[in-house]
Amino acid sequence: MKKRVAISIGDLNGIGLELALINHKNISQIVEPIYFIDRDLLELGSDLLKIEIPKSLKNINGIGKSFNIEAGKVSAESGLYSFNSFKSAVESAKNGDVFGISTLPINKESWKLAGIKYSGHTSALRHFFNQEAIMVMGANDLWVALYTEHISLSEIPKFIKREFLEPFLRIIWLEFKNKFNKIAVLALNPHGGDGGVCGNDEVEIEQAVLNINREIGFDFFSRPLVPDIAFTPRMRNEFKFYISMYHDQGLIPLKTLYFDESINISINLPILRTSVGHGTAFDIAYKNNRILNSKSYINSIVWLANK
Amino acid sequence: MKKRVAISIGDLNGIGLELALINHKNISQIVEPIYFIDRDLLELGSDLLKIEIPKSLKNINGIGKSFNIEAGKVSAESGLYSFNSFKSAVESAKNGDVFGISTLPINKESWKLAGIKYSGHTSALRHFFNQEAIMVMGANDLWVALYTEHISLSEIPKFIKREFLEPFLRIIWLEFKNKFNKIAVLALNPHGGDGGVCGNDEVEIEQAVLNINREIGFDFFSRPLVPDIAFTPRMRNEFKFYISMYHDQGLIPLKTLYFDESINISINLPILRTSVGHGTAFDIAYKNNRILNSKSYINSIVWLANK
Repeated sequence: MKKRVAISIGDLNGIGLELALINHKNISQIVEPIYFIDRDLLELGSDLLKIEIPKSLKNINGIGKSFNIEAGKVSAESGLYSFNSFKSAVESAKNGDVFGISTLPINKESWKLAGIKYSGHTSALRHFFNQEAIMVMGANDLWVALYTEHISLSEIPKFIKREFLEPFLRIIWLEFKNKFNKIAVLALNPHGGDGGVCGNDEVEIEQAVLNINREIGFDFFSRPLVPDIAFTPRMRNEFKFYISMYHDQGLIPLKTLYFDESINISINLPILRTSVGHGTAFDIAYKNNRILNSKSYINSIVWLANK
Repeated sequence: MKKRVAISIGDLNGIGLELALINHKNISQIVEPIYFIDRDLLELGSDLLKIEIPKSLKNINGIGKSFNIEAGKVSAESGLYSFNSFKSAVESAKNGDVFGISTLPINKESWKLAGIKYSGHTSALRHFFNQEAIMVMGANDLWVALYTEHISLSEIPKFIKREFLEPFLRIIWLEFKNKFNKIAVLALNPHGGDGGVCGNDEVEIEQAVLNINREIGFDFFSRPLVPDIAFTPRMRNEFKFYISMYHDQGLIPLKTLYFDESINISINLPILRTSVGHGTAFDIAYKNNRILNSKSYINSIVWLANK
């Protein structure tokens, strides 16, 4: 039997609905999708996109508050709707109505305008479940867990403390010990601080690694690697999973190599959640164009189907 | 007539000497290399490497202070020697004895042990010439200029001010206006700050870009680009030259794609200087192995030959 999967529809001013519509038939072959969107908005979006609603797309779960779709626009209404769609999808997973959820992209600025205090899906999940949800992104043979994510660069260093790093490493170990033989841990500073010439945060990272490796009983986590050479072809032969100290440190190389294919998964939560790796792409929304790439969306569904 | 090029020998405990010896014949076909090393150390290194000194390698310029080469060791002696080799090579360029210099890698920690106050070649050049030398790295169709470089992550944000960014952009414009049609400028924060959700530094970057573009008369510099999607294949079709706000932001994608080929060039200086893109590789020094890759060293020489 196919797994029931909740699709939170994302920001309706972005590309999410188009992805949902054009891939419905395809993904229905491996899962049973339930879309968290109201009938009137589904119809409005379908009209704007000039894409018919597939006959078999019947399984929808309304939110109840309509608004006017405006392609590519940051708006409080759209932000609120995408948040409610997401929240309902999460509820359905929590209640066991679905096996897991796949979230289409939301716009963080629209969430902010709507007065939603979370900086993204992952931070909201963290709050819903009062658990340290961790964001992992990847494709093919390159996976990255983000130690910090949607915070400004200036806030990163204060989190680089062994007492915060250790619980994080412990979770990664428990989640991935059966999937990877070893995991790369990145340094924070250029050249890994170069022996203190450009930063000392690596001392904290190294101590956390040593402590957790001692608990585990072998060197599962690497010493902090010099970031700019951690993703060379030679290093990627050695490591398939990386812990990056900040968002762009891990996502720049991942998206440089595998932008179209990457998916996002949340770990350390009581529910299964995947997401496309990209954003709302407001610049190409409702242009019904050929640039739109479905690889990431499909991979996110495949990941759930295979879980 | 072939151009005379000074080769500063780098940290003799690293892979520099091996690169110089095995590529001498090759690079001598396009330039006339002058090595900044003493005869006794050249012989000692050649013995340790079990690589004969090529008969045609006669053009050496001694530094005068010998020490004992210890493969892979961070040491004050080695740090000091590499600094003096570099300094002499720079002098020869300054005096017009050579067309330009190519620097083999030094170890920053060894420089620090030797009491050298510069965090690398580029910062030393900046001091020698009292000019804002800018570090540019690249290969093939991807080039990156570093706005900040060998400083800790925590120090970066204080440099993201329009009054510091504007003179930098002006130099890049003057240097590259004839080589590129447009240049990508990266944001600092994840998602470019996401409209203020995770940082506001992008306001400063954007203002600097707008001001300089107004001076120039057209949009030569891009608005601050979201960093993690700036190097996707689609974006690299559009941009061949990037300005990164910090070291790893630009060098992670460059080295992920073109680690072996990348070279380093210093711009905004009265002398021409190139360098290999990699470090001293202490882990493979004096192992006379097959891993050693000469592409970057050769590309740095080719760049000077074609300049």
